[in-house]
Amino acid sequence: MAKVKKQPRPKAANPRGLRDYFGAEVTARTDMLRTIAEVYHRYGFDALESPAIETVEALGSFLPDVDRPNAGIFAFQEPGEEDGDWLALRYDLTAPLARVYAQHRNDLPTPYRRFAMGPVWRNEKPGPGRFRQFYQCDADTVGTASMAADAEICAMLADTLEALGLGGQYVIRINNRKVLNGVMEAAGLSESHETERGIVLRAIDKLDRLGPDGVRALLSEGRKDESGDFTKGAGLLPDQTDTIMAFMDARRDTGADTVARLREIVGTSQIGLDGVEELAQIATLLEAQGYGPDRILIDPATVRGLGYYTGPVYEAELTFEVTDEKGQPRQFGSVAGGGRYDDLVKRFTGQAVPATGISIGVDRLLAALHATGGTEAKVQGPVVVTVMDRNRLADYQTMVTELRTAGIRAELYLGNPKNFGNQLKYADKRKSPAAIIQGEDEAARGVVQIKDLILGAELSETATLEEWKDNPSQIEVPRTDLVAQIQKILARHS
Amino acid sequence: MAKVKKQPRPKAANPRGLRDYFGAEVTARTDMLRTIAEVYHRYGFDALESPAIETVEALGSFLPDVDRPNAGIFAFQEPGEEDGDWLALRYDLTAPLARVYAQHRNDLPTPYRRFAMGPVWRNEKPGPGRFRQFYQCDADTVGTASMAADAEICAMLADTLEALGLGGQYVIRINNRKVLNGVMEAAGLSESHETERGIVLRAIDKLDRLGPDGVRALLSEGRKDESGDFTKGAGLLPDQTDTIMAFMDARRDTGADTVARLREIVGTSQIGLDGVEELAQIATLLEAQGYGPDRILIDPATVRGLGYYTGPVYEAELTFEVTDEKGQPRQFGSVAGGGRYDDLVKRFTGQAVPATGISIGVDRLLAALHATGGTEAKVQGPVVVTVMDRNRLADYQTMVTELRTAGIRAELYLGNPKNFGNQLKYADKRKSPAAIIQGEDEAARGVVQIKDLILGAELSETATLEEWKDNPSQIEVPRTDLVAQIQKILARHS
Repeated sequence: MAKVKKQPRPKAANPRGLRDYFGAEVTARTDMLRTIAEVYHRYGFDALESPAIETVEALGSFLPDVDRPNAGIFAFQEPGEEDGDWLALRYDLTAPLARVYAQHRNDLPTPYRRFAMGPVWRNEKPGPGRFRQFYQCDADTVGTASMAADAEICAMLADTLEALGLGGQYVIRINNRKVLNGVMEAAGLSESHETERGIVLRAIDKLDRLGPDGVRALLSEGRKDESGDFTKGAGLLPDQTDTIMAFMDARRDTGADTVARLREIVGTSQIGLDGVEELAQIATLLEAQGYGPDRILIDPATVRGLGYYTGPVYEAELTFEVTDEKGQPRQFGSVAGGGRYDDLVKRFTGQAVPATGISIGVDRLLAALHATGGTEAKVQGPVVVTVMDRNRLADYQTMVTELRTAGIRAELYLGNPKNFGNQLKYADKRKSPAAIIQGEDEAARGVVQIKDLILGAELSETATLEEWKDNPSQIEVPRTDLVAQIQKILARHS
Repeated sequence: MAKVKKQPRPKAANPRGLRDYFGAEVTARTDMLRTIAEVYHRYGFDALESPAIETVEALGSFLPDVDRPNAGIFAFQEPGEEDGDWLALRYDLTAPLARVYAQHRNDLPTPYRRFAMGPVWRNEKPGPGRFRQFYQCDADTVGTASMAADAEICAMLADTLEALGLGGQYVIRINNRKVLNGVMEAAGLSESHETERGIVLRAIDKLDRLGPDGVRALLSEGRKDESGDFTKGAGLLPDQTDTIMAFMDARRDTGADTVARLREIVGTSQIGLDGVEELAQIATLLEAQGYGPDRILIDPATVRGLGYYTGPVYEAELTFEVTDEKGQPRQFGSVAGGGRYDDLVKRFTGQAVPATGISIGVDRLLAALHATGGTEAKVQGPVVVTVMDRNRLADYQTMVTELRTAGIRAELYLGNPKNFGNQLKYADKRKSPAAIIQGEDEAARGVVQIKDLILGAELSETATLEEWKDNPSQIEVPRTDLVAQIQKILARHS
């Protein structure tokens, strides 16, 4: 190691908006991603891991702020070179997929089903629960326009949520951008009405927040918000507004009925009929596979992503209630979203390549699992073998080895053994289920003391004086019974 | 998605020295890291995941090229800020550990056992098999000077290699920097002989390459290499040289004998005796746990890392032979190394914090598993349900769903079904074990055709004409037997 020159001490701190993840946090995410990967694998999706660094040219700039194309990303010039390429950390897993597919398309199967999991980086203002590095987990099918690909993604998402223990607590909603375009045509807004169409898109995107009346206002004259600011509307006539509103209100009890209602609304619009036909195919496929509307449904009120995607869009919501920051109960909400995008690879090759995919919000889903206690990773603390006599380290270490060999998580106390209280404090901090003690006397008699720390903690809260006197949380057993006794204690608490 | 302006098409290529990992490559690494994590967990080590980005200040510059401290790393200024902090991608997992421990030391247990796995980035000249992003997998114990920590790391490394199926094919060697320092004192090179000590360190570091005679030359007058270049030696007298050479040749059959021999060599040097005592403690602990010299041994000829670490050093080597680029058999060699380093946290806190740890070369170890076929991930291709009649997609999709529900990896063919040959080519490319075919006729009769693609490939190489006529690789079964038949085929080939 090179010598460090005398200089002020460096600050031991993360750059802002970045954080460390410890123990159970890491393990819970790893376990969750493994479960997801198992489902994706069964569906025939192949893993892909592309590097964190891409050329800015290949990434493109699809982040919202188009005026400052590199504003939201971490970009830097190839280090040590005058005219080096501009490089950047990937900001999602979709842009790298487009580059990978264009680069390797002759070697990849067509269609190409792939999944990817890993961190992405965005140079955005960090906030509570928002970090500049976070995980994404994506699955996409590239190279097919078949609606069977979209239906499959939705079914896979449902199976994933079930595998994570969220059965009965989610719903996946499907909508279609082409249907919306058809509705606009039916309302007399042809493609030449670009301004109005933009306002309509932004308005329906606010359905969740403003409700139908707010959206209706934005579609017609405009809307004054609570602060008194006025947003100009699209200026649609009542008839036109009714058509758009009817679209968002088109959900019926079955997929087939919803599709029929949408067919009425889009009228003779060809793109609208195409979109309705897409939804009809998806509904038929899902129904044949037993995914009823209790799990996956056509819902024209699902408007997120309608501006971004080119065909079907999907969103998974968790339906159980949690308490928000203000103490109010609310639905947990969205944990995954996606849809069909047909132009991403074209940037590279000039050839349109149809693609569809889903992205799971890893941190949101982890928070959901935490809230339900569902498949939350339970990281068992290690059994701690304490050190009473530092000349007998090898004996203590042998106990640890025996436990580990039996598959039990175990540790020798490696701190300064002088103060025995510190050893028990350490075991507490490690959430140890048990501590093992063997002094000179116990060694001579061929026994060990086992402290059941979980029982001990319970007793300290509830025990009567008599119970305390028995001290049932500390037992003496023959040295030869050590492993069996610990197994018994672990089984009791598991 | 924002519209892409008309501009030359971007190049679909990785930045140099970076690559994509596909399918089995990703899965094999994930599986290997999971196995390692399981062993580390059982040893009481906790997962830690720190972000990819650190401040340059916190990382320090421990990469070899001290003249250009940022030469080997990807560094960039906090984007969008005039006087922003300098940030960098982590170049290893040890520097972030020091920062994490200094930052969170009041909340972490002491000692702190942690493991970390993930990519690191180095801006080095890429070469064959050398990339600018690669994985590391580290385990360290921070906050204890006890040799039990070092012994534990070595035992854990042995257990890890066994868990990966490499039992009987590895050896872990332990040496000690303090013993070397003691040997230098015994040879009359006190700390004031800094230049000579430097030459000695570099000379013994070349033992593998130059052999004992080459090292001996470098310790005395110097050495002329094959190209005729002369390297000045340390100028030691024969007695002094003998002492250094005796150190590297001190290995005996048992740890105890090696330790005894080293004790003779270091004579009265206090630091030397300290180092010998450390090795003696490690040897005793490992022996008590049953790690004999066939798995872990004290080997003073292990010189890698002696310059970097401050006490014990360890290195794991795989002992089986592989064929090198020149067609020559050679030992596979090192897959992991580590040792004790006591000053890393001090940079931040001013307080020395003893620490010891190991780093596994993830790519080397993966290559080793590949070479032995040991626990190499076998990624099963999906069963492909072909599409004979595009109006019956839902029926085909239902077959796929039945297979998946039975835990079988399966896919519907999602490409253009017009050309049936393409569907079988696709199945080939996917390494499918079987393809399923159901045309109008089969549907009417309630049957499906199953093509056993693995058997088919075997027959195409070996079958006689008669065998071909029977066409045993394609069978017709009742539709209701589909899942059972596929299970039979998979079992036969597994």
